[in-house]
Amino acid sequence: MCEANAYLRRNGKDQLILEAVDKLIPQAGQISMINIFGQQKTLKARIIELALVDHKIILEELQEEL
Amino acid sequence: MCEANAYLRRNGKDQLILEAVDKLIPQAGQISMINIFGQQKTLKARIIELALVDHKIILEELQEEL
Repeated sequence: MCEANAYLRRNGKDQLILEAVDKLIPQAGQISMINIFGQQKTLKARIIELALVDHKIILEELQEEL
Repeated sequence: MCEANAYLRRNGKDQLILEAVDKLIPQAGQISMINIFGQQKTLKARIIELALVDHKIILEELQEEL
């Protein structure tokens, strides 16, 4: 299977937040993800980088005010 | 390998723009991609959806004025 793990990058460290992500939909400042086990997660974030060969989705939380 | 193919969605149709994408970085309204063959592509677009089990990255071109 070719899903990827989603990490939240904070202070240069990547924290795993959802394994085996299949679908990811960004909309209205949020990222919604569903993994191959049917688990869903939605958070206020943006994509920093996809590294698919490494199975990584790197996200960063969006602040209310930048 | 677990790369995905990038498609541009226009009028409901998906056109393949880059095969076997490894890295994807969104920044400043642009999407930069590099595939496993070292080919690069950058375009003014946003991610509509990732469907990784289907190996698909669906993009939409950004208009200058929305």
